[in-house]
Amino acid sequence: MAHAISPSRAENYPEWYQAVIKAADLAEHSPVRGTMVMKPWGFGVWELMQKGLDGFIKETGHDNVAMPTLLPLAFFEKEAEHVEGFAKETMVMTHYRVKPDENGKLIPDPGSELEQPLVLRPTSELMFGHMYAKWIQSYRDLPLLLNQWGSVFRWEMRTRLFLRTSEFIWQEGHTAHETQAEAIAETKLMYTVYNRFMRDYLAVASIGGYKTPDELFPGALQTMTLESMMQDKKALQAATSHFLGQNFAKASDITFSDRNGDQQHVWTTSWGASTRMIGGLIMSHADDDGLVLPPRVAPAQIIILPIYKKDDEKITVMAAVAALQLELKSHTAFGEPLRVKIDDRDVRGGEKTWQAIKKGVPIRLEIGPKDLQKGQICLGRRDKSTKEKVFLATADAVSQIPAILESMQQSLLAVSDERLKSNTQVVANLDDFRAFFEKDSGFALAYWHEAAINHPIFAELKVTPRCIPVAGQTNESAQCIFSGETTTTQVIFAKSY
Amino acid sequence: MAHAISPSRAENYPEWYQAVIKAADLAEHSPVRGTMVMKPWGFGVWELMQKGLDGFIKETGHDNVAMPTLLPLAFFEKEAEHVEGFAKETMVMTHYRVKPDENGKLIPDPGSELEQPLVLRPTSELMFGHMYAKWIQSYRDLPLLLNQWGSVFRWEMRTRLFLRTSEFIWQEGHTAHETQAEAIAETKLMYTVYNRFMRDYLAVASIGGYKTPDELFPGALQTMTLESMMQDKKALQAATSHFLGQNFAKASDITFSDRNGDQQHVWTTSWGASTRMIGGLIMSHADDDGLVLPPRVAPAQIIILPIYKKDDEKITVMAAVAALQLELKSHTAFGEPLRVKIDDRDVRGGEKTWQAIKKGVPIRLEIGPKDLQKGQICLGRRDKSTKEKVFLATADAVSQIPAILESMQQSLLAVSDERLKSNTQVVANLDDFRAFFEKDSGFALAYWHEAAINHPIFAELKVTPRCIPVAGQTNESAQCIFSGETTTTQVIFAKSY
Repeated sequence: MAHAISPSRAENYPEWYQAVIKAADLAEHSPVRGTMVMKPWGFGVWELMQKGLDGFIKETGHDNVAMPTLLPLAFFEKEAEHVEGFAKETMVMTHYRVKPDENGKLIPDPGSELEQPLVLRPTSELMFGHMYAKWIQSYRDLPLLLNQWGSVFRWEMRTRLFLRTSEFIWQEGHTAHETQAEAIAETKLMYTVYNRFMRDYLAVASIGGYKTPDELFPGALQTMTLESMMQDKKALQAATSHFLGQNFAKASDITFSDRNGDQQHVWTTSWGASTRMIGGLIMSHADDDGLVLPPRVAPAQIIILPIYKKDDEKITVMAAVAALQLELKSHTAFGEPLRVKIDDRDVRGGEKTWQAIKKGVPIRLEIGPKDLQKGQICLGRRDKSTKEKVFLATADAVSQIPAILESMQQSLLAVSDERLKSNTQVVANLDDFRAFFEKDSGFALAYWHEAAINHPIFAELKVTPRCIPVAGQTNESAQCIFSGETTTTQVIFAKSY
Repeated sequence: MAHAISPSRAENYPEWYQAVIKAADLAEHSPVRGTMVMKPWGFGVWELMQKGLDGFIKETGHDNVAMPTLLPLAFFEKEAEHVEGFAKETMVMTHYRVKPDENGKLIPDPGSELEQPLVLRPTSELMFGHMYAKWIQSYRDLPLLLNQWGSVFRWEMRTRLFLRTSEFIWQEGHTAHETQAEAIAETKLMYTVYNRFMRDYLAVASIGGYKTPDELFPGALQTMTLESMMQDKKALQAATSHFLGQNFAKASDITFSDRNGDQQHVWTTSWGASTRMIGGLIMSHADDDGLVLPPRVAPAQIIILPIYKKDDEKITVMAAVAALQLELKSHTAFGEPLRVKIDDRDVRGGEKTWQAIKKGVPIRLEIGPKDLQKGQICLGRRDKSTKEKVFLATADAVSQIPAILESMQQSLLAVSDERLKSNTQVVANLDDFRAFFEKDSGFALAYWHEAAINHPIFAELKVTPRCIPVAGQTNESAQCIFSGETTTTQVIFAKSY
């Protein structure tokens, strides 16, 4: 049977990914190098994600703020590792006026050059740090738990929609604490929040853990990460949470007077998740017919497709369809009113159906004059064959839909869990490691020691350490399969995005 | 009686404004010239405003998208008036890497200079235009009704928190239509939406109308505006909606094949409202004790202030307070659950009360051991004297609070309406015009003709034409009070922000 997306996943996974985005009308490249335009359907998914994650962030005690998009370039001089990590992709504003040159072409006005250039934030540790140094005086001001939503900028030479763009939308949390223990607990809390969000909203399973030293966020002491497995068995880093120790507190001079009246530096964390998660959502669930949306983040969970030929049919069908939409909206799934749209465009019925499939709408309801007579509707599900349609009494369909949506959400997560489980394997030696990645790929768990960081096999196989998983670490020691050093640390390895 | 804010409105209105923002902890200046940091309480107000306005924008058929923050500088060459309007405040990105110079100071890496500089968007007509030219082929693709929320950038030499900053958050709608009539209707619709939002959410009255030609948005044929009157009787332009004719369609070459198969340019509109509205909110309602928030945009509508001295008192009071919060949250005002916070900080009771007053929290509930015994709470209202407290049986207080909040919202709007009405005056000649603005000020309505645009009295009195009001225009002709030309147009004049 023919499928809507060409090429298929099996034929060419990267091109399939681009084709799904196009077919679902999620986003496209903009005329500005490396950036994208998020279109209504894609941005609608993001709005639901943002609302859900923002709720979790607030429930765990954080407030939102808005810091400026620009930072003084000199701020970056404060933290050596941080600047080293971002210098090669930092975008700089240098002028504040434009004017026409002698040929009428617009140029930055040389008379408006800034003495101190400004940087488009690649991340905001140093801006929050600057303000925290003003706001925090005493232990009574701690913890300070803030978050912001906004765009960040990192110049990219090779871009891919959602996965890697020169501008992306994210949230970045920045917190300051009285003690190391509290900051570490916060780092773990937000990692847990991200995992819950990924599972509950995106239906995406991950292995969570700590980054190895070579993969730390620039300036961090610990980076916790969630590594999800895509359908091609590559890893996608979905969200990260960083314990920054006192590095940034010292860089920005954030001190407080403690319970004994002594001056100390605070302990800070930062944590972020971005529109990149949409890339993970697509590569976790989409199929050869297009996008598959978990109902919880579907801008329309149900699309109603009215069918009619003659004008008098149109009148009765459209009235019935409007009543059905109203009825459905009075029901809830996941604690919220159902999201229902009517596709009343003047377009062929088959084309409408296929557009709904390609966009990943969970449930399609077709209703025509004959159905009206019989008091039935035809229900199609995105998780069933496109040909499989069930006729149900209208009232039965309405009452069953919330449970269908909730079960679809659960099934998607179960598939993601199973994919992760069945493709994660313990690897006991270097030959098995090579064989694993030359053949089937997936996540390999192996004993590892820091001495292995520059082992040539990683570059050769294009494999990287993804994380030291939180779950399943033992205290047993063994030999690092790369360096032969004795270690108790096991690491997840994978090819990655 | 002493007041919390110094200076008072009467003593120094501009300094009072800054003091209110500080006392309510809404926002402060950032280390980046001309930009601000919105703090949790100020951003909390904005989040409620954004949610409300976003709901109206979606209800009227618009979808949200995200366009890039940066635009190619060359885009601005497409529309002459547009570039002229923005050239002097356009912020430019020129480099995409930084590196240390010989002294270790970070500088833009000269090797990373862009051939084509990028501009931080001051507004996005030309970016939407570029995409619309790709997306629109036929009349079937129209109308296209999109909106985005995000930051825009306009370099400012003299900045004031919320009112004028080099970066501000706003929404900008951009729509394309088949006919001129539809685009004009859209322009009016969004002006109506803004007026409804300002009245329903911010409790701010405005006079709405058309900008005179000298005050048009650069490139627009019509600009509709809402002009609100602040407590010092100056005007604040709160939101604008522009009919752009085919100017931008021609600049970006947005054409469609019409119902006869002929190629035509679309008709476009744009409309925006920003964090500037928060400035208007403050100057409409705040008093000499600090901010006054309309309950609909108060991050906390009710603050519970527990009172206790001994530890055993604390236990019983805190338990009662938690139960009260839960009970209140099960009630609704304006169709949403009540927003209730407990101030359980280890701070003096009087200080907590005054902080709640300065932040503009509509209702304060004090509860102590004696109140518990009597089954009562003490209710303070932001719209009553700070000393006026009413003791109510707890159940009565809970059941009355939604109606109290809704009446406070209405009263604030009534005061704003009355201020606008009683300070707007018809002015029949130049002497009266001068006397009006030299004495009491307010909004003056006078016959006006375009020939008056450069009349010296405007600069002399620092008065500008605010709008040709939609309501109250007649077809009677009279002499322009400035130029003596015959006209049918009446214009509202005021000093303004």
